[in-house]
Amino acid sequence: MRFAKGHGTENDFVILPDPDDEVDLTGDLVARLCDRRAGLGADGVLRAVRVASPAPGSGPAVSGGAAEWFMDYRNADGSVAEMCGNGIRVFGRYLLDHELVRGPEFAVATRAGTRLVRAELDGAITVDMGLPRVLGAGRATLAGRPFDGLAVSLGNPHLACVVRDPLDDFDVSQPPVLDAEQFPDGANFELVRFIGAAHIEMRVHERGSGPTRSCGTGAVAAAVAAAVTAAVAAVTVPATVRDAPPPPGRWTVDLPGGRLQVTLAPRTSFLSGPAVIVAEGELDEAWLSGKTVTPDQSSPAA
Amino acid sequence: MRFAKGHGTENDFVILPDPDDEVDLTGDLVARLCDRRAGLGADGVLRAVRVASPAPGSGPAVSGGAAEWFMDYRNADGSVAEMCGNGIRVFGRYLLDHELVRGPEFAVATRAGTRLVRAELDGAITVDMGLPRVLGAGRATLAGRPFDGLAVSLGNPHLACVVRDPLDDFDVSQPPVLDAEQFPDGANFELVRFIGAAHIEMRVHERGSGPTRSCGTGAVAAAVAAAVTAAVAAVTVPATVRDAPPPPGRWTVDLPGGRLQVTLAPRTSFLSGPAVIVAEGELDEAWLSGKTVTPDQSSPAA
Repeated sequence: MRFAKGHGTENDFVILPDPDDEVDLTGDLVARLCDRRAGLGADGVLRAVRVASPAPGSGPAVSGGAAEWFMDYRNADGSVAEMCGNGIRVFGRYLLDHELVRGPEFAVATRAGTRLVRAELDGAITVDMGLPRVLGAGRATLAGRPFDGLAVSLGNPHLACVVRDPLDDFDVSQPPVLDAEQFPDGANFELVRFIGAAHIEMRVHERGSGPTRSCGTGAVAAAVAAAVTAAVAAVTVPATVRDAPPPPGRWTVDLPGGRLQVTLAPRTSFLSGPAVIVAEGELDEAWLSGKTVTPDQSSPAA
Repeated sequence: MRFAKGHGTENDFVILPDPDDEVDLTGDLVARLCDRRAGLGADGVLRAVRVASPAPGSGPAVSGGAAEWFMDYRNADGSVAEMCGNGIRVFGRYLLDHELVRGPEFAVATRAGTRLVRAELDGAITVDMGLPRVLGAGRATLAGRPFDGLAVSLGNPHLACVVRDPLDDFDVSQPPVLDAEQFPDGANFELVRFIGAAHIEMRVHERGSGPTRSCGTGAVAAAVAAAVTAAVAAVTVPATVRDAPPPPGRWTVDLPGGRLQVTLAPRTSFLSGPAVIVAEGELDEAWLSGKTVTPDQSSPAA
């Protein structure tokens, strides 16, 4: 079985090309692939399956036409996930590198619908992330300290909190305490700080994953919180915003894993940044069959 | 540039076949390869270089004859290291898989001298680790609690402490406080517990690396401490042993990353266990050249 390993701002993925949908991608195999010591190591797996007959109406109309490839995205624990902003950018890089799509703009089918992907002239890969939904003000407690922020949905829930202190002053290794009524399923938690004109930095604690080097939906949520805050010249998010589209604009978002660009457009948003293939190859047959894990325990050592 | 990724009890390595010694393996490239998000991810790199003319006397006489391959081992931070017990076992697996050596027994040249490697019938790979040197009793403090143990050298220094409580009761995430006079350069710290006849479990805090899933020299040091303790039917290491070879015997050592077998022989020791190749392939040219790291920061997002 062939594979590639790649990353987008240090969100890393194993890509499995499977044009004819032949691979039985079990949760166990995903978890073994993503194991950082006994496997290849990754935040998730991106299986590339050719869309059999790209039916009209299989997704929103995009300029690249109907999607030729479906991104079967799995989390590192083997669970199925709908979409991943950094993942689809790395997926796009792989398709382009192998001339499996015609660039610079093409559609990719995901469980969250068809998404437009574009190769920029400078090497960045951009993905249409859809319109962020502003849910209103929210509050969380981190290490006993309260944080006011903006609840934003990008399909998944976020609480993005604009702060004035240097981000290194905060410890996002522990999960924040969220309002269970506002976030019954939890949320990703972003700390956001202005560091220039339309330029923010961010730290994230991802629901279920802890602090991560990057988070695509989190970067968009952070830009939304920054845009809403900047629009009213406030220091923190005003409590009155709700269900209005965020002010349009382009934002640079610095994360521990690198730099992303977020564009807030009137009807959607775009996430842009580096997407890198590190290596490609073939999985070992014996490893795949699981026969290499442990030799006979009773064997003499020498 | 071709590579393989493999592991031995979850000590993992990137193997770079370089028979003609052509690769300029800089510390920067090693660190990039071992980066667990932006690279392939590993505890270290094993470069396989063919020994140009295996001169007689280039190492201890071994039944496999003079070494045909040199293991250029590097730590994840890019620094040069002499030897690695799990690393050389994975290195041996790679050479055998590719028929680059004639098995089942062969010699590998390392910076610590030539080492004998053997493929066992059950799939385990065994390496001659040399004679452990018993340095005498020692004491360390972990989380404010004192531990008595045995100082052992396998080339690198260890303090192996036999304990009675379940190992999960101890937190080895923080470094122990060692006697600076006894260990001027620090030491690996092992907690060891008897769980059966000639069967121990162990946790390790590696000097410079923190708690790890496995440590080959640590497993041998743990077996030595257990053997010395068992020989005098004591619960902890007697304070009187020093500079005597450890009592011979075979020990099973359970670690977080798997199971190793240690044989203490009169004049040497052997480390045996699983050694697994996960995948092989080719590094991406653009990644290798370092040109993929960041697109132009000033680029428009969309």
